[in-house]
Amino acid sequence: MTRNDATTEGTEPDAVETEREVVEGDSEVDEDDGEVVTLAHGAGGEATRSLVDQLVVSRFGDAANPAGRAAEPGAVGLPELDDGSAHPISGGETSIVLTTDSHVVSPPIFPGGDIGRLSVAGTVNDLAAMGVTDPIALTCSLVVEEGTPTATLEAIMESMRATCEEAGVAITTGDTKVMGSGELDGPVINTTGIGAIEPGALVTDAGLSPGDAILVSGTIGDHGIALLSEREGFDLGGGLESDVAPVNGLVAAATDAGEVTAMKDPTRGGLATTLNEMAGKAAVGVEIEERSVPIDDAIASAGELLGIDPLSVANEGKVVLGVDPDDAEAVLEAIRDHPLGENAAIVGRATEDHAGRVVLDTGFGRRYLSEPAGEALPRIC
Amino acid sequence: MTRNDATTEGTEPDAVETEREVVEGDSEVDEDDGEVVTLAHGAGGEATRSLVDQLVVSRFGDAANPAGRAAEPGAVGLPELDDGSAHPISGGETSIVLTTDSHVVSPPIFPGGDIGRLSVAGTVNDLAAMGVTDPIALTCSLVVEEGTPTATLEAIMESMRATCEEAGVAITTGDTKVMGSGELDGPVINTTGIGAIEPGALVTDAGLSPGDAILVSGTIGDHGIALLSEREGFDLGGGLESDVAPVNGLVAAATDAGEVTAMKDPTRGGLATTLNEMAGKAAVGVEIEERSVPIDDAIASAGELLGIDPLSVANEGKVVLGVDPDDAEAVLEAIRDHPLGENAAIVGRATEDHAGRVVLDTGFGRRYLSEPAGEALPRIC
Repeated sequence: MTRNDATTEGTEPDAVETEREVVEGDSEVDEDDGEVVTLAHGAGGEATRSLVDQLVVSRFGDAANPAGRAAEPGAVGLPELDDGSAHPISGGETSIVLTTDSHVVSPPIFPGGDIGRLSVAGTVNDLAAMGVTDPIALTCSLVVEEGTPTATLEAIMESMRATCEEAGVAITTGDTKVMGSGELDGPVINTTGIGAIEPGALVTDAGLSPGDAILVSGTIGDHGIALLSEREGFDLGGGLESDVAPVNGLVAAATDAGEVTAMKDPTRGGLATTLNEMAGKAAVGVEIEERSVPIDDAIASAGELLGIDPLSVANEGKVVLGVDPDDAEAVLEAIRDHPLGENAAIVGRATEDHAGRVVLDTGFGRRYLSEPAGEALPRIC
Repeated sequence: MTRNDATTEGTEPDAVETEREVVEGDSEVDEDDGEVVTLAHGAGGEATRSLVDQLVVSRFGDAANPAGRAAEPGAVGLPELDDGSAHPISGGETSIVLTTDSHVVSPPIFPGGDIGRLSVAGTVNDLAAMGVTDPIALTCSLVVEEGTPTATLEAIMESMRATCEEAGVAITTGDTKVMGSGELDGPVINTTGIGAIEPGALVTDAGLSPGDAILVSGTIGDHGIALLSEREGFDLGGGLESDVAPVNGLVAAATDAGEVTAMKDPTRGGLATTLNEMAGKAAVGVEIEERSVPIDDAIASAGELLGIDPLSVANEGKVVLGVDPDDAEAVLEAIRDHPLGENAAIVGRATEDHAGRVVLDTGFGRRYLSEPAGEALPRIC
């Protein structure tokens, strides 16, 4: 199964709805025989989680392993599978937040960005989504193929420098490895970031309570749709561009303006996966009004042509927030005042009903919005 | 130029000595036209440093970038090019140490270890070499090719788990990416580690003073020679094995026993590169007695057959220490009492003469020991 593999059952869906799962429908999942890794394992959804559980969480997530489990305030461990981990030090006054991402995006230079900008923004945004808006440092580990033009790497590093400047962070240590000709298709860049935060200011992706407003900081689906359009050679005349950008400044504005209860950046698997994870972890329902979700017209058109739902693909310059309902308007306004947040919107709310699931109100009916189970876009980030 | 490309000039060298540079001789270096990345750029020596300077330090090492430069006690920045960076927090009471490595070793499972053990040990050892012997956490970012047997990854992860247990550390966050079939030869594993340390306990690789004793924690050259022997299909009957192991416990014993002034783990480029870096950064000379350097007989024999100097290839379970001369015997004894340190030795001392260079006393004469300039062993770690 490829692309968006959710199915529709028991309704008369319109063309768009066929891309999603209906209420109580079962999504079809590729049967994983457990023998080899597939592209689906890299998609960031259910298959990725299953592989990570099998390989990593099973070994490092047990309670006997105190460093791996959140056992105290200000701690976030591996089993939480949040955007990173958090480690109280200095008697619990401060938590050190740690997050890592390896980037394999293809092509390495794409409309609206490149692997360098993506690497810096990706890690800065993971820290921001945990409340760390002023990172201490980033690492940069570069793996390149023999024969890579130095000019290509110069361009990528220059982009990293500019993005670091935008985010107010620096690369302070790194590593460089070279693989032989034919051994690696395109550069692999790992960026790992650290920050310090007061435990009380830490925001997880598990903090939603019924009643919380759900906000998105801007248009949804830009990165994934722009990348796939480029790869498929579509020329839509509209100049589709990735949204890749560091959102730590925007997040700082949001958290200053009101009580943010939960946060996550909707990367692989898109808004659909992010909302399902947030609902599942908090054991609340999430109800989203489809017409409130900001989607760029050109992105929506390209998505229809490609058969890809913008709600299910990666964003690289956005954040999803749960906000105390009393503060929702203030936080929205603060985000909209930020240059990266002009299209921000309140898109729904957390509910007691439908615990662990996301309900999409299309204006014509309501159905569950499931996360994509298979591989929409390999090497999207 | 391949393998060990130092040259001999002005002496009548024996077979081993032809592998090294003579005193005042100029080593030949491949001319780098600056256009493409070569395997030499991945070797960890002069060429790697030149590429890192060009790509990274030029952009992130300037004084205008305060997070990138060591400006206060307990701080180590990018320009220092130490094993990692260090960041004072909490008003300078604590420094957070950060280090990263991407591992591309081929084959991923090799005599004496595998890429999983190497990934954990490599990062634990970089932290240890800065004085952090009780790490807070490690990350694990996995990039694998579609079609990789899950059983291979299980074996690697199981090795990571066992090595983490040995080192007393846990993986707390990570990332998994999948590249297409034919796009990646073997897994790439990035491990990044963090630890907290009192600024006064931080050990850099730049702290040597004239008179300091130089110690190595065990036999030299095992990892590189064992890997290359395996790759070349040599069967020497001796069961050559990599020394890959986490040395944080050994380092803790050493720093508890006396004043360690400088420390570095001799990975890519081997002891020769490490000593040259330590001498250069401290602007002292280093004099080494060749007969004191512990080298396993089988490793020495294999090195001669391969034309590779054990002093110039990677170790993955060793550390080089500068020690206050009054404490040298006590530190040596403490290291020898550790299971990984039974072959530890005092191999030389730091001097005022020959500032920035390493002099090797062969017993028949003295000459400079230069770092390998080219690529001895691609994908060694």
